[in-house]
Amino acid sequence: MTTEPTPLRFEEEALLVLDQRRLPDEEIWVRCETVDQVAECIRSMAVRGAPAIGLAAAYGIGLAAQADENLERAAILLRQTRPTAVNLGWAVDRTLQADDPLALAKRLHTEQLESDRRLAEFGAERFEEGDRALTHCNTGPLATGGFGTAGGVLRAAWERGRLAEVWVGETRPLLQGARLTAWELRRIGIPFRVIADAAAGGLLARGLVDRVVVGADRIAANGDVANKVGTYPLAVLAARHGVPFYVAAPVSTIDPRTPSGEEIPIEERDPAEVTRDGEAFNPAFDVTPAGLVTAVFTEAGVLEPPYKESIADVAAS
Amino acid sequence: MTTEPTPLRFEEEALLVLDQRRLPDEEIWVRCETVDQVAECIRSMAVRGAPAIGLAAAYGIGLAAQADENLERAAILLRQTRPTAVNLGWAVDRTLQADDPLALAKRLHTEQLESDRRLAEFGAERFEEGDRALTHCNTGPLATGGFGTAGGVLRAAWERGRLAEVWVGETRPLLQGARLTAWELRRIGIPFRVIADAAAGGLLARGLVDRVVVGADRIAANGDVANKVGTYPLAVLAARHGVPFYVAAPVSTIDPRTPSGEEIPIEERDPAEVTRDGEAFNPAFDVTPAGLVTAVFTEAGVLEPPYKESIADVAAS
Repeated sequence: MTTEPTPLRFEEEALLVLDQRRLPDEEIWVRCETVDQVAECIRSMAVRGAPAIGLAAAYGIGLAAQADENLERAAILLRQTRPTAVNLGWAVDRTLQADDPLALAKRLHTEQLESDRRLAEFGAERFEEGDRALTHCNTGPLATGGFGTAGGVLRAAWERGRLAEVWVGETRPLLQGARLTAWELRRIGIPFRVIADAAAGGLLARGLVDRVVVGADRIAANGDVANKVGTYPLAVLAARHGVPFYVAAPVSTIDPRTPSGEEIPIEERDPAEVTRDGEAFNPAFDVTPAGLVTAVFTEAGVLEPPYKESIADVAAS
Repeated sequence: MTTEPTPLRFEEEALLVLDQRRLPDEEIWVRCETVDQVAECIRSMAVRGAPAIGLAAAYGIGLAAQADENLERAAILLRQTRPTAVNLGWAVDRTLQADDPLALAKRLHTEQLESDRRLAEFGAERFEEGDRALTHCNTGPLATGGFGTAGGVLRAAWERGRLAEVWVGETRPLLQGARLTAWELRRIGIPFRVIADAAAGGLLARGLVDRVVVGADRIAANGDVANKVGTYPLAVLAARHGVPFYVAAPVSTIDPRTPSGEEIPIEERDPAEVTRDGEAFNPAFDVTPAGLVTAVFTEAGVLEPPYKESIADVAAS
């Protein structure tokens, strides 16, 4: 029996973080007893994926609260780790306001699976038998702490017999697709092939892709989507070839306070992630304009254009 | 004094091939005394770049002729190494017909520099002071045995003070951009930064790219261009953002017998180049439709749309 992959476990007063930088070679769990250790795991991408770093941050506030530390300092520390994802700030805000932050963190974690499942079922509705789907980065259980966002949609589509194969963009520079998504799909038993990110255009041109589905790190009020670098080219190419482009993300990814993609800060990471010589530019994300997004799958339902209205509705509910 | 990078040297009755798979870590020269050894260097990509493999193949016929081998067998062997580039077949055809194939191979090699220089000067005309250019794969001296195609254009633009910086797509899976183009640009002293291939879209969207210039492995009669996988997405994105997209390639890259890109065979290479687990799809090239190409720089001048006419003119001359 294989256990479901999970990026986080809370055991014996500590948060255990599966070090995703070492996957698939080794399964090493980093034990975090303090918020500083949690922040370092987020910053260094031992844990990554917008929903999962939200949960990790919630546990970080929880640990700080248990230790009677200054929660404002803990919140500032966590917020500085990764600037683009908005779930992190959302999770920090929610736990800060809770009477028992650690209990809330645990509740958010257990709720994640159910929420992801709902999202996945909404998404799978859009698939048809024989579909070949292209995805990017990692958006499965490792990315959310639950069932996955785009990865969960693929799994639900597979369970319904509506998915033939997945094309996995390797997702340079850190290879979350080749390392993590391949690892998850292999465990589930979904047929897949990894491609160089730059090969996606040729596949779309040759009619080998029926749907593109990706996650999101932040969705602006107008529907613009910040996600892993390389998402925007996929959206442009999908539109050119008439292939639906879906975004799968929990409601906590939507940031009504950010009017459009222009206001989303794009994290620049260490050039050494790209090339050891350091003469590199390494933006971690890009922005896909709302006009290229066919639909957004959330646990509250499917959002469709015009996004200003559908996002305002879901944000108000 | 640094010597100019060169992928091939003919010395003491043998072709010396710089093993580009080992660059930039080591400069190892593989000594080829037979056409079989040359063919293996081409197949394994010890030498790569459409013009350079054309020259290597010409030397291969030359070596076979020196050894009084069956030249038809040598030609078949060489043609089977890489299916997409057309310069290879062109070079084999020319040397087969020569009275002294080895002398012709040497002449083609010495002519390459002059021909590349002319191409580069035509291309540099289109640049303006302060331009930031994006390129893909490797198209400098290592790729041609001369001055380079797209790489030569960048160098000529730099020498004229018309180039501020180069964005270098790392070019997965074999990293010809990060390994080879970075190595060449560092030697010449042109400022550059390597990017993940998938980051190009975000750079274009943010207005950080003024021109895209790439090489070609085969240009069909209608102007469709086969080049390193990842070229087609760059062309689509450049068009979307109103950035000129140039192709730099010698006339020998043009194949009037191939009507359009649909008829160009796309080499599929070992999945293990992408991921060691083997669950990968690894097309080495893609096809950019002529409609996305602003201009083609050749040693015979600049080709512009409609390409059917401009290509017919240059092919007839």
